[in-house]
Amino acid sequence: MSISQADEVLAELEAPFYRAVGDEVEVFQAAARRGSPVLLKGPTGCGKTRFVETMAHGLGRELITAAGHEDMTSADLVGRFLLKGGETVWADGPLTRAVREGAIFYLDEVVEARQDTTVVIHPLADHRRELPIDRLGTTLRAAPGFQLVISYNPGYQSVLKSLKESTRQRFVAIELDFPPVDIETEVVTYEAGIPPETASALVKVGRAIRTLDGSPLREVASTRLLILAGGLVAEGLSLRSAVQSAVVQALSDDPDVVRALGELVDAVLPRA
Amino acid sequence: MSISQADEVLAELEAPFYRAVGDEVEVFQAAARRGSPVLLKGPTGCGKTRFVETMAHGLGRELITAAGHEDMTSADLVGRFLLKGGETVWADGPLTRAVREGAIFYLDEVVEARQDTTVVIHPLADHRRELPIDRLGTTLRAAPGFQLVISYNPGYQSVLKSLKESTRQRFVAIELDFPPVDIETEVVTYEAGIPPETASALVKVGRAIRTLDGSPLREVASTRLLILAGGLVAEGLSLRSAVQSAVVQALSDDPDVVRALGELVDAVLPRA
Amino acid sequence: MSISQADEVLAELEAPFYRAVGDEVEVFQAAARRGSPVLLKGPTGCGKTRFVETMAHGLGRELITAAGHEDMTSADLVGRFLLKGGETVWADGPLTRAVREGAIFYLDEVVEARQDTTVVIHPLADHRRELPIDRLGTTLRAAPGFQLVISYNPGYQSVLKSLKESTRQRFVAIELDFPPVDIETEVVTYEAGIPPETASALVKVGRAIRTLDGSPLREVASTRLLILAGGLVAEGLSLRSAVQSAVVQALSDDPDVVRALGELVDAVLPRA
Amino acid sequence: MSISQADEVLAELEAPFYRAVGDEVEVFQAAARRGSPVLLKGPTGCGKTRFVETMAHGLGRELITAAGHEDMTSADLVGRFLLKGGETVWADGPLTRAVREGAIFYLDEVVEARQDTTVVIHPLADHRRELPIDRLGTTLRAAPGFQLVISYNPGYQSVLKSLKESTRQRFVAIELDFPPVDIETEVVTYEAGIPPETASALVKVGRAIRTLDGSPLREVASTRLLILAGGLVAEGLSLRSAVQSAVVQALSDDPDVVRALGELVDAVLPRA
Amino acid sequence: MSISQADEVLAELEAPFYRAVGDEVEVFQAAARRGSPVLLKGPTGCGKTRFVETMAHGLGRELITAAGHEDMTSADLVGRFLLKGGETVWADGPLTRAVREGAIFYLDEVVEARQDTTVVIHPLADHRRELPIDRLGTTLRAAPGFQLVISYNPGYQSVLKSLKESTRQRFVAIELDFPPVDIETEVVTYEAGIPPETASALVKVGRAIRTLDGSPLREVASTRLLILAGGLVAEGLSLRSAVQSAVVQALSDDPDVVRALGELVDAVLPRA
Amino acid sequence: MSISQADEVLAELEAPFYRAVGDEVEVFQAAARRGSPVLLKGPTGCGKTRFVETMAHGLGRELITAAGHEDMTSADLVGRFLLKGGETVWADGPLTRAVREGAIFYLDEVVEARQDTTVVIHPLADHRRELPIDRLGTTLRAAPGFQLVISYNPGYQSVLKSLKESTRQRFVAIELDFPPVDIETEVVTYEAGIPPETASALVKVGRAIRTLDGSPLREVASTRLLILAGGLVAEGLSLRSAVQSAVVQALSDDPDVVRALGELVDAVLPRA
Repeated sequence: MSISQADEVLAELEAPFYRAVGDEVEVFQAAARRGSPVLLKGPTGCGKTRFVETMAHGLGRELITAAGHEDMTSADLVGRFLLKGGETVWADGPLTRAVREGAIFYLDEVVEARQDTTVVIHPLADHRRELPIDRLGTTLRAAPGFQLVISYNPGYQSVLKSLKESTRQRFVAIELDFPPVDIETEVVTYEAGIPPETASALVKVGRAIRTLDGSPLREVASTRLLILAGGLVAEGLSLRSAVQSAVVQALSDDPDVVRALGELVDAVLPRA
Repeated sequence: MSISQADEVLAELEAPFYRAVGDEVEVFQAAARRGSPVLLKGPTGCGKTRFVETMAHGLGRELITAAGHEDMTSADLVGRFLLKGGETVWADGPLTRAVREGAIFYLDEVVEARQDTTVVIHPLADHRRELPIDRLGTTLRAAPGFQLVISYNPGYQSVLKSLKESTRQRFVAIELDFPPVDIETEVVTYEAGIPPETASALVKVGRAIRTLDGSPLREVASTRLLILAGGLVAEGLSLRSAVQSAVVQALSDDPDVVRALGELVDAVLPRA
Repeated sequence: MSISQADEVLAELEAPFYRAVGDEVEVFQAAARRGSPVLLKGPTGCGKTRFVETMAHGLGRELITAAGHEDMTSADLVGRFLLKGGETVWADGPLTRAVREGAIFYLDEVVEARQDTTVVIHPLADHRRELPIDRLGTTLRAAPGFQLVISYNPGYQSVLKSLKESTRQRFVAIELDFPPVDIETEVVTYEAGIPPETASALVKVGRAIRTLDGSPLREVASTRLLILAGGLVAEGLSLRSAVQSAVVQALSDDPDVVRALGELVDAVLPRA
Repeated sequence: MSISQADEVLAELEAPFYRAVGDEVEVFQAAARRGSPVLLKGPTGCGKTRFVETMAHGLGRELITAAGHEDMTSADLVGRFLLKGGETVWADGPLTRAVREGAIFYLDEVVEARQDTTVVIHPLADHRRELPIDRLGTTLRAAPGFQLVISYNPGYQSVLKSLKESTRQRFVAIELDFPPVDIETEVVTYEAGIPPETASALVKVGRAIRTLDGSPLREVASTRLLILAGGLVAEGLSLRSAVQSAVVQALSDDPDVVRALGELVDAVLPRA
Repeated sequence: MSISQADEVLAELEAPFYRAVGDEVEVFQAAARRGSPVLLKGPTGCGKTRFVETMAHGLGRELITAAGHEDMTSADLVGRFLLKGGETVWADGPLTRAVREGAIFYLDEVVEARQDTTVVIHPLADHRRELPIDRLGTTLRAAPGFQLVISYNPGYQSVLKSLKESTRQRFVAIELDFPPVDIETEVVTYEAGIPPETASALVKVGRAIRTLDGSPLREVASTRLLILAGGLVAEGLSLRSAVQSAVVQALSDDPDVVRALGELVDAVLPRA
Repeated sequence: MSISQADEVLAELEAPFYRAVGDEVEVFQAAARRGSPVLLKGPTGCGKTRFVETMAHGLGRELITAAGHEDMTSADLVGRFLLKGGETVWADGPLTRAVREGAIFYLDEVVEARQDTTVVIHPLADHRRELPIDRLGTTLRAAPGFQLVISYNPGYQSVLKSLKESTRQRFVAIELDFPPVDIETEVVTYEAGIPPETASALVKVGRAIRTLDGSPLREVASTRLLILAGGLVAEGLSLRSAVQSAVVQALSDDPDVVRALGELVDAVLPRA
């Protein structure tokens, strides 16, 4: 398949399902009007991606996403030269495309990326709003509407992998967390397509695990896990089997922890 | 040999031999109907690959497999540009092929792979079900039937190599283990092509090693090892020679351990 | 897009807004007349980039900027060969372009770059004022007007990442810091487009955080952060929400620190 | 020299000289009939390579050998694309060649290789007997007669470099060691082309070094070293000079150890 | 710009300004007559580069310079193949050019380079005087007049970065240091273009810093720094401002050290 | 310059100057008749390279040399593909050239090379005498006369860098050291072109340094250093200046050690 034949699969722009918890929507919209970059902080599976999708939809702008990883280089974001018919042809990376088209660029798990990836966004994250492309010997000014959004999970930060202060201090920071019980139940009901009572039972399980004293888990049961379990129930699996596979086994490999979580689930779930 | 001349060797789709132990088949099928990704956990040689082959056969879908390793990059999964007649031509990687064709993609030993490999599957492992291909500047929506399956051996996890929480929490987890005696005997009989009594003796050896108190072995005798030993017997080797080569010498290099295992085998095997 | 079609976006040369604090302007101008390279030292967000922009504007010279990062190689600065029509064509890097055109070259965060990046500027930073380009087998003498400016944040230096003495001792060093209250208030007022009283309140918050005893913060609230908060207020957000997002959440992820900073902000900000 | 002009030097298939010690030949032949992969374990220079050559000759199959090393990548085994006339042409690696032609593939010192090398052989080492070639987007089924043989020296294993359990448990393991006195004397006589008495003296030296109490040597005098010394004698060097160069100096650089070994040799060798 | 169009900027061969301190000129000239390689040792900014420039001028030979750095490979010195019109064309590196043309090759900061860089000069640094170019499959004999000069700063050596003994023992070593007061004053006067009294004051500052008891500085004020400060004075800056920027701030970032150095400067400089 | 135009500089085959000390010549010649590979051990500058040159001249064979270094890959020895006229053309590396032409291949400082370099010589170092070239898919049998010689300095070995046992045990080992006084004086006289009395004085200095009690030097004064000093004397430098530059300063950077060595030299050298 040549590049021009590559099937362009565009995400249909139906409004995503999102329930606001605090002033996150207002802060994001103010930053968006200003063109200020936004940093989303929050645990795995609490809805950061969904929040950005909702904001993009509300603003009527395209959303271009990339996920940071250890081997990501600045070329993965900015672009690179390709050989075509014996000529080198420049191919925009996702960041450059967003800069040209005035889209929202969302860099997920930014602390996983190497430093050249984060440094490359600096001139886009201050008053300059420009992207120097060394390999083209040029500098792009961001089109109106371009907005930079990055996210990370503070629980993952370590000495080796943390956001540089010179990067952080360019962003308006918004903290997200798991929603309160009623909103989480509404979300699980909607996303998994299950009755509210089943969703409520799953949210109870999730809450019980999150508030476990002295928990040996590296991370708690996210809203995403509860939706995953709900989906299995919607496909006909029993609630217990679904929770066992999508929550308990997903959270730990340790036989003792798995058994303890199983007992906790038994105590929380309604008798069948 | 040019690419187009490469011999395509298609696995014939005869039903693989698999005996279910718990509710693993039901959970997998529910996840498959939902399109939810599945994580298989279990020790070396307990049948994870065989289980996936069985599920794929039952669902009538193609199975595309890749094994994670330290040097695997995202390009190994997604694809890369090749030079052809002076043009760069895109060649789909195995993951992209599975996404286009709606196949089951099985990434074995996922924790061995570098992070960019695991991050690249994230958008395929949540509600988006899409694969962004940066180098093509495009995003593929997964064809119906596409399902992601990954596996790993929890005994291998270490601080350096473990599955990221943000990856784990996207998967329905299924734990597999060595089957109970009767099923394991049936499996060894069938796979090695030996009489049930011989298979039974081999399973006894395996069980004895697995339940050894204070075992110095990093891993126990797997079902796969017992089948390997059975195969040597089917080729005319004595039971003791077969167990010595395919089980004892395969499990340890330490002379003391080898001798102790040999004595255990002597105690378990019937006098010739 | 081919190289020649790349949109050249030139920064319009309106005078940037800068308020001098000490003799930094005189020292820079003397160094510029002499052609001596300049090293700017100072914390994140104190205005180093803005200072260089002001100096370049005052001297009527083009400013070419690059930001050091771990993966920057000398080729990123000097240039590289590109394939074009089957020929290798040399493409100047930003440093080479500045050397040819007599521009000011500003290498931001120089300690982040690998050593070959810093060594490559040595012959430009002493009496030779020349740039050897090994790959062309040539040596460029810097055009009149060329000046080298590098910057770094002393607070970031570590054993692993520090400026080599043989590099440092080629530069006239200028130390910058956050401006005094009246100048900082003027700057925040102008840059954020808010009333002086609001700017004054933000500067009070900034000063309070900077003088916190035994602060657990790796870095304090920079002028840039205060401008960012001011911008959110200009977009209609409340002062408290703006400070919470652009200052408090931007400075820390630690719940205790975030709460303590919030109390400090409450004590400093005027009752609504 | 172009590829097609490369001189193909085929090893003439005369029967290699090998004397069996235990049941290693029977186990290998049973595994070969079954198509099961074989793992050879044993110290440096004990005859592992010679054993495989003998087995290949006996089975009338071609032997293709590769030696594992730190920088070996899977492409070194599987193959890579080469540019030819502006086209990329695929060139089979040695493993792929063996898979297509049904040859014995012998990977020497497997633990030296990087993990992607060992993982690439997994599907060839179980019931699948297939080689996925990601870069061709194809999977080769092994031709009849293909057999995988790997070897390593257990004395070299360390925490960093050991065979993964998931690799080990796919192989029938055969342990080799230095042969008993009479066979070793016969081997040295034949290989070095010296009288049996001289060979006998050399074997005595080897035995004395191997049974040294509290030996400071990392490895003992192998059969290969004794043959090397014998060869120097066959070329006219005195027995003592030959042992000094080919055994003593080859085993250690430490002056004390060299002197101690020299005294041991004096005690063992017949007076001239 | 193509290679052939690259502007060749030749350094005009006016006699550089150099004042000999010991027998360094005689030793260098004897080594040059003999063709023996020379190793220059000495602190940052003491005049090593200037010394080599002076020697090259005196001998009427071209001087080709390269600075060692962590990422320098042997190809950076020896040369590499470039694609040109579909052909690979060899491009000499600076060392190869010097070998062909009988120039003096000066490798500055040799310990910074990787080992393959230093090993590549071995055959040029002994009786062979030849440069094997593996990639050309050829070996160049050095033209008459070729001389190898390397330099390093002994104060920088560490366990990780030191000159290998097998490299050192091929060189005639010359140690350079800061010149005595009268010569240093003459040098600063000449190079900065300032009155001798001002130069004398600067040299006094430099001497005071160099003889500081228990100095916390990694390196002292070099002659180069004093010339830099003198240049700022020549451009109209006050002596105190010049010393503050070009000496004090250049030597340290530590506020306490900066203040202490400032007090030392106040004590040494004449009252304005 | 294209490859075919590369100036082939052939070393004229005049007999090198070498004085035998022990039975090193006989051992080498026996190994050469047998085709057995040779390992030379000895300190820096004791004459290992000269010894091999002498042996090659005596046997009338070409000598091809390569020096091991950290970045050497097997391709540097075996060869690689080059692009030529749009075709990839294979270019033999120095080892392959020696294998084809039956030359002596001398790999100096073998422990510096990466493991793939040393592993690649294994099949050339045992009974097979063949070189598998994976990238050509071929295996070369060594031409008659081909002989492998490697060398290293035992004093440099460390845990990280030592010769693997499986490599060592393929070689006949010859230990070289500095020659006795009379031979060393003869060598220095001849090589430096100075009167025997001057050479004798230099050898006395060398001996005094080598037998220094509790020497802080990593390595002692080699014969090569004494020849280097002699050469400076031949060019008119005083004996003391020559020893100071070519011996004392070459051996140490430590002021105390330099002074102590200077006093030792004063005590040994004749009063001028």
